Amino acid sequence: MAEFHSKIKTIEWVDNYSKMVDQTVLPYEFKYVNITSGQGMFDAIKTMIVRGAPAIGVAGAHGVVLYAQELAAQSLSREDFVRNLLVKADYMASSRPTAVNLMWAVAKQKDIIKNSTSDIEGIVDELKQNAIKLENEDIEINKKIGDFGAEVVPNGATILTHCNAGALATVGYGTALGVVRSAFANDPTIQVFADETRPRQQGARITTFELTMDGIPTTLITDGMCSYFMKKGMIDMVVVGADRIAANGDAANKIGTYTVAIAAKYHNVPFYIAAPLSTIDTSIKTGDEIVIEERSREEVTHINGKTICAEGVNIINPGFDVTPHELIAGIITEKGILRPDYNKSIAEAFKK
Amino acid sequence: MAEFHSKIKTIEWVDNYSKMVDQTVLPYEFKYVNITSGQGMFDAIKTMIVRGAPAIGVAGAHGVVLYAQELAAQSLSREDFVRNLLVKADYMASSRPTAVNLMWAVAKQKDIIKNSTSDIEGIVDELKQNAIKLENEDIEINKKIGDFGAEVVPNGATILTHCNAGALATVGYGTALGVVRSAFANDPTIQVFADETRPRQQGARITTFELTMDGIPTTLITDGMCSYFMKKGMIDMVVVGADRIAANGDAANKIGTYTVAIAAKYHNVPFYIAAPLSTIDTSIKTGDEIVIEERSREEVTHINGKTICAEGVNIINPGFDVTPHELIAGIITEKGILRPDYNKSIAEAFKK
Repeated sequence: MAEFHSKIKTIEWVDNYSKMVDQTVLPYEFKYVNITSGQGMFDAIKTMIVRGAPAIGVAGAHGVVLYAQELAAQSLSREDFVRNLLVKADYMASSRPTAVNLMWAVAKQKDIIKNSTSDIEGIVDELKQNAIKLENEDIEINKKIGDFGAEVVPNGATILTHCNAGALATVGYGTALGVVRSAFANDPTIQVFADETRPRQQGARITTFELTMDGIPTTLITDGMCSYFMKKGMIDMVVVGADRIAANGDAANKIGTYTVAIAAKYHNVPFYIAAPLSTIDTSIKTGDEIVIEERSREEVTHINGKTICAEGVNIINPGFDVTPHELIAGIITEKGILRPDYNKSIAEAFKK
Repeated sequence: MAEFHSKIKTIEWVDNYSKMVDQTVLPYEFKYVNITSGQGMFDAIKTMIVRGAPAIGVAGAHGVVLYAQELAAQSLSREDFVRNLLVKADYMASSRPTAVNLMWAVAKQKDIIKNSTSDIEGIVDELKQNAIKLENEDIEINKKIGDFGAEVVPNGATILTHCNAGALATVGYGTALGVVRSAFANDPTIQVFADETRPRQQGARITTFELTMDGIPTTLITDGMCSYFMKKGMIDMVVVGADRIAANGDAANKIGTYTVAIAAKYHNVPFYIAAPLSTIDTSIKTGDEIVIEERSREEVTHINGKTICAEGVNIINPGFDVTPHELIAGIITEKGILRPDYNKSIAEAFKK
């Protein structure tokens, strides 16, 4: 069977625009949107038409190309083109504050802008080639993550995941769900429990969609249920993605992840992070330095356009939380599974 | 200010029927429904038009009166009346399996049916008077629970609660929210964080409704967020209700409670149960003996009538989980706050 995930790319550069799966309408509708301007990409990232740390990294790189194309059409001097484009690149990187892959990919584009010796047209072309390179590398990296991760998945395991770190959070294959895919390829008795992941329900909307499309048995549970199933011995391991990992292994991921990690620790269920090295931000020592995005009131108070609570209620809506390194059994990367002490294993992974 | 909660009764016997707040349409609509038959009461409990352990206890008592009225109209012999009514009472008690208050209240009615020396009309009247007595006692008990509980609420505390153990889960005032009300009456700087409580969203739909109606500051959070706020030091204590408590203090409550209790333990936040003695089932030694109700697939897959996930997904929907006694700082009852060792303190409370 040619799997669903291998037939689609979540985000892809086509000619002179970015084509992406519109993740706001899943699972009701599977459609692509074309993003043709820099501001359009900023909005697509902010409103989560594209989401998932690796995918928004590539989206950021595409966004810089879109701005480069716009500025190239304005008959600017090369110097003005470069200066303006660097400002636009920083603006693009500010569309979401927590996932470091966005800053990382934009920084890669900025390096090209600053270091290229080409003319304007040449710079645009180099940015485009680099964006396509990041796309292709993302899938290769995820397959490596999947294969390393599969080694620690027990036979017949039930794997709990939170949010969506799947093909649809990356260009393809997925990080946490890449581990699931690689494990399932060897052992079709693997199954997944997917947390709904309120408020945005990426688990319910996106993870159940992509896993059932690939024929991987998936049970949807509400976010509070994880401990119930762990106590019953029905969960063998937890694997989630990450949006930013500090030098000591503290890992920011979708809100609710930290609660799952605590429950896993209480039940002695191993809790893994699956993420590319580009998610690791060695410039910060601990998770305390990670900026947590505050998202809108409506994400909590409304589901499918309808309110679910009393009007006078207060809302605080952090988009992410930080799981401290002591709750993490391993960080599955394209360079292998990093183990505690993370300060040491992370530093070594970057030297490989 | 005359508080909202003191102006309503969640469930009330009126002439020859039971009048109750329809909790399935909150917070969109506040309306009463009249339940006029035994089968109607069975269905109202099962579909959660009335919910909350103490409220369904009273509902069960009303249901027995409704069946008694129906059988009294059938010109049966006294013996047949009694035999049939005892069967109907057992049926009523089977409408929901986890909350012991239902079995407890029905058992009180069965005692009357079995021990009365009156004629049929007299039995119906005794059952009616007993149902009204249970109603009135419930509010008195909750006020005592509230006052005992308020003693352990720190000044200016933020109290996290899960599901709804409020006025709308009881005849009035509430158990967990009774503690909030009593604390707030003395200290208007008290505030509440309310877990949404998927799948049925009793926290979002009912707790935010009743607390904001009473002017108590309330922040709605999604179920996965509790650990994030605990880590930030923003939660001073957790108070929840219970549906059945074993002799050793293990407490069944709405699914998700156990996850909150584990998070509270991890952050050294005291976790309290607030419940009347009628919720304690000393016939069972531990929580392992508590039957957990399995509810419908649609509660997880649909919100407000719209699906939130892929079609091919599996669902397991336990309505409750059991929090083990070692995670519980105290059980707040109408006889005071019970502390570990619960085997001892529970046994003593029943002797008072």
